[in-house]
Amino acid sequence: MAAEKGSNKRIILKDYVTGYPREGDMVLISSDIELKVPPGSAAVLVKILYLSCDPYMRGRMSKPVVKSYIGPFTPGYVITGYGVGRVVDSGHPNFKAGDLVWGITGWEEYSLIEAPDSLIKIKYTDVPLSYYTGILGMPGLTAYVGFHEISSPKKGETVFVSAASGAVGQLVGQFAKLMGCYVVGSAGSQEKVDLLKKKFGFDDAFSYKEEPDLNAALKRCFPDGIDIYFDNVGGPMLDAVLLNMQNHGRIAVCGMISQYNLTEKDGIHNLFCLITKRIRMQGFLEPDHKHLYPQFLDLIIQYLKEGKLVYVEDIAEGIENAASALIGLFSGRNVGKQVVLVARE
Amino acid sequence: MAAEKGSNKRIILKDYVTGYPREGDMVLISSDIELKVPPGSAAVLVKILYLSCDPYMRGRMSKPVVKSYIGPFTPGYVITGYGVGRVVDSGHPNFKAGDLVWGITGWEEYSLIEAPDSLIKIKYTDVPLSYYTGILGMPGLTAYVGFHEISSPKKGETVFVSAASGAVGQLVGQFAKLMGCYVVGSAGSQEKVDLLKKKFGFDDAFSYKEEPDLNAALKRCFPDGIDIYFDNVGGPMLDAVLLNMQNHGRIAVCGMISQYNLTEKDGIHNLFCLITKRIRMQGFLEPDHKHLYPQFLDLIIQYLKEGKLVYVEDIAEGIENAASALIGLFSGRNVGKQVVLVARE
Repeated sequence: MAAEKGSNKRIILKDYVTGYPREGDMVLISSDIELKVPPGSAAVLVKILYLSCDPYMRGRMSKPVVKSYIGPFTPGYVITGYGVGRVVDSGHPNFKAGDLVWGITGWEEYSLIEAPDSLIKIKYTDVPLSYYTGILGMPGLTAYVGFHEISSPKKGETVFVSAASGAVGQLVGQFAKLMGCYVVGSAGSQEKVDLLKKKFGFDDAFSYKEEPDLNAALKRCFPDGIDIYFDNVGGPMLDAVLLNMQNHGRIAVCGMISQYNLTEKDGIHNLFCLITKRIRMQGFLEPDHKHLYPQFLDLIIQYLKEGKLVYVEDIAEGIENAASALIGLFSGRNVGKQVVLVARE
Repeated sequence: MAAEKGSNKRIILKDYVTGYPREGDMVLISSDIELKVPPGSAAVLVKILYLSCDPYMRGRMSKPVVKSYIGPFTPGYVITGYGVGRVVDSGHPNFKAGDLVWGITGWEEYSLIEAPDSLIKIKYTDVPLSYYTGILGMPGLTAYVGFHEISSPKKGETVFVSAASGAVGQLVGQFAKLMGCYVVGSAGSQEKVDLLKKKFGFDDAFSYKEEPDLNAALKRCFPDGIDIYFDNVGGPMLDAVLLNMQNHGRIAVCGMISQYNLTEKDGIHNLFCLITKRIRMQGFLEPDHKHLYPQFLDLIIQYLKEGKLVYVEDIAEGIENAASALIGLFSGRNVGKQVVLVARE
């Protein structure tokens, strides 16, 4: 039987990126593809339905200077990230055509996954499949682990979340509310502030772009100090938070999106507060906590069914718009989790 | 019976200090004193034998901007710090004349302690009494807690200690060696480096003043990275350490002596390493761990008797030299724990 042929549009990184990424740093190419895995291979061929735009991807666009937990993209090659797809053909005993999966895939319409052990078969299909790029995927587990495992939260504590309407932030805020914390978020526009307060149930929120003095904004929102800071942005916000932490506070360091495009990083000047306030500041990565995924997934599915969690996505349509959607993260253009819809089925 | 009279030399802070403290920021005055506690008072009058020079005291000399765990000194009044002394007279039922005590006292020859509950009666007197300003006092418990409680050390791990020949650093390094760690220290002179290697048993050491590139020095000493950094200095050393930490490393933030005299603090630029390397960075203060003091004291006394710990002090003689000894900390003039001998008995 002759293999069916298809065309495959792919997003290629042109060269390492310095400073803010531009759409032109990536190029869309199209090539033919055989819709079969090569004979004898244990690979899996996946038709991509959704691609996930995540801030950490910026780091992979830079020329590597120090070894990181994840390698850089390779100029001239397709970029990779979290995706959701349907198996078209499989040489691997654990997967068969028709299976829905999520995991690291190419940014392309069809992705040949050479080491499919990293793919996760989708258990619940009565939710939007795009959720597996967010609330039911890496960002969801990141929010869960960062709040429940890293931040040692207690009922009644005060919690501050930056980039609070993003994929991770909106969940952290809701987890904190479910635990009975007082929760304030920062975001980059009044529209996002409204979303935080009206949709996600944050107790208060502010737009950092409209605050000339972050220290004063935090003092206003937290007159008695911050017990937990869930940091997605780093930079000047982190510096202002340090001044406003409560004794024995915790800072979960999840991301530093304000710094990713700077060739000269902002200096943090208030770390002495770590001593005087006995603060624990802890970085973490979701892959270290993958063993918690099954229990996390069951819990979140239940919360979604009970209406205890809400989730907002910003969906760009078509792989032609994927590069633009990705770089939009760094100007805060997205409202909610940024996803690219590549194919509907 | 008429009260005996004495003369009392005291160190007064002239005014709040900006930048590096100078000897002239303090003044020695002498006044008469009645060597009795006032009638009806529950105070204790202590004859000071030793005064402790500690880096944290610099913070108390500054005009306060934010509320700290410990208030500022008051210009025009005697400064206070840890001291060792002998009770001359007591209005408090727990203390009697002749008791040896340590705790917070005035920097003076005779100190009237209004709230003597904070004083600790000295249990072991077969060691130099000056040790209660250091290895058997606040710096000792600081080193013990910061290493054993905050740093989660394991046998075979790599440990870096800055300001390693100081009161706290010399003990941290020895605790780490006793646990079977590989230990490197930094200090400010070749004399101190020799002390670290030959006296305290550090595996390696370097003088930061002779290293044009701290990052390179740390890479040379720790080709596989640092598991535990015991930070006494902050600033550029902390920034270089962040680049050289091992995954899942811990940073115990004990002090930042490089920053105390700067009106504009150095910025720390490499905090993103907290995420990529999943580092826990934790500030702490010894007073939170006072409940551990009795077990700590018995352990250290035993170690001293068995010769498992050594301890180096730099003793200035006479209260006339106290101000100079204190400010010498900030240029690193002291070799080992800086103490002032006020009276021999």
